[in-house]
Amino acid sequence: MLSTTPRTTLGREKQRGSTDRNDLYDVLDTGLVCHLGVVVNGCPMVVPTGYGRIGDTLYLHGSTGASSLRAADGAEVCVTVTHLDGVVLARSVFHHSVNYRSAIVYGRARLVTDPDERLAGLRALSEQLAPGQWDYVRPPNRKELAATAVLALSLEEASVKMRRGGPKDDEEDYALPIWAGVLPLVTSWGEPEPDSVLPEGIETPVHILHRE
Amino acid sequence: MLSTTPRTTLGREKQRGSTDRNDLYDVLDTGLVCHLGVVVNGCPMVVPTGYGRIGDTLYLHGSTGASSLRAADGAEVCVTVTHLDGVVLARSVFHHSVNYRSAIVYGRARLVTDPDERLAGLRALSEQLAPGQWDYVRPPNRKELAATAVLALSLEEASVKMRRGGPKDDEEDYALPIWAGVLPLVTSWGEPEPDSVLPEGIETPVHILHRE
Repeated sequence: MLSTTPRTTLGREKQRGSTDRNDLYDVLDTGLVCHLGVVVNGCPMVVPTGYGRIGDTLYLHGSTGASSLRAADGAEVCVTVTHLDGVVLARSVFHHSVNYRSAIVYGRARLVTDPDERLAGLRALSEQLAPGQWDYVRPPNRKELAATAVLALSLEEASVKMRRGGPKDDEEDYALPIWAGVLPLVTSWGEPEPDSVLPEGIETPVHILHRE
Repeated sequence: MLSTTPRTTLGREKQRGSTDRNDLYDVLDTGLVCHLGVVVNGCPMVVPTGYGRIGDTLYLHGSTGASSLRAADGAEVCVTVTHLDGVVLARSVFHHSVNYRSAIVYGRARLVTDPDERLAGLRALSEQLAPGQWDYVRPPNRKELAATAVLALSLEEASVKMRRGGPKDDEEDYALPIWAGVLPLVTSWGEPEPDSVLPEGIETPVHILHRE
C-alpha cells in the first residue's frame, strides 16, 4: 500500500490515483529520468536527473559540485517520474487530456556514506539507465567514486497517478460530428550508433542491440 | 540572448549551456509536458502539467481547485522541460551519460485575469498539446472558463542545456575492447485510436492523422 499523508492524498480526480505499491515500482522502474525538486534560497529548482531503485529506496547521484545535489543533501526533496502515453482528443477543448503514468516521491534526502551502499546505489543508477553495462564496461575507480555524491530517498511517502483510455465528453457533445479518440505517443529505441572512433571488430553487445 | 542571473548561469559543464534564446524556444515548442516546481509549506512539489508559449510568456493552466496551481499563484516557480534523445554508452561506468535538451525557467507566476489574455493562453496551451484542435472542436463555454485558472510566467530568466554526440572517454580507456556509442531514444506518434462510441462516417482529420 502507498502512503496516505496529506500531500500524497489526491484532492482531485481521485479515480486516477493508485494505492498499489507495485504501480509505484512499475512507474519508477520503466523510467529513465526523474525531475528532482529542491528549494534553493526559498525558491523551487527542478532539474532532470537519473535515478535507480533498490527495494523502497531511490538513489540519485551527481558531481559533488552540482548545486542541485548540494541543495538536496539532508533537505526535503520531491522526485517526479512521468510517462506520457498519448494525447486524449475530446469533442471539446475543455476535455482534452493526456494518458500518462506518474509517480511523486516526497522525503528528506540522505547523503550515502557507506561504501557498500554507495556502490550498490551507483550500480542501480547505472542499470536503470543502461542495463547490462555495469558488468560490461570499466567499473568506477577510486577517484571517480570520490567525485560522485550519492543520495538516498525513501519511497515511504509517494503517490501514483495515471490516466488511460479514451476521452470523457459532456453528454450533449457526443452528438457532435467531431472525431475523438487517442493519439498514442510511442517511445522506442533506435539503432545503436557506434562511436566514430570505435575500432573495427567490436560487435554491439546483445544487451544494447536488443534492449527492451 | 538568455539571462545570466546566478541561477541560470551554469556552474558545471558550461559547454552544454546555450545562450541563444531560439534554443529556448525550440526546447519549449517541441515539448508536450513540463514539470512545474512550487514550494508548499517549505517543501518542494513537482508536478507534470501542460503548457503553452506566446512570445516570451509561458502559460500554465489547471482546475481552480488544484493545489499546485494555488501554490503557484503569485509565487516563485520553476518550470522545466526535458527531451531525452538517447543514452550515451561509454567505455567506463563513470562516463555514461544521456543526450538531451532541457530548459529551466524561473520566475514569479502571475494569475491571468484579463479575459482576452486568458483565452489566448488557453489556446496556446491547447495548440501545444494538440495542434489544430482549438478550431476543430467545441470551444470552452463560460462555465468551463470559470473553472480554469491560467497562470503566466515570463521567459526572462531561463537557461538551456543540451548534450549531443558520442561518449567522451578517458584517454586510456579508448584501447579497451568495449563497444561504445549512443542508443537513440525515438518518440513518435502511433496510429490514432478512435473513441469506442464514435459514430461511423467521421473521418480522422488530417491534423491528427499526419501530426508531426
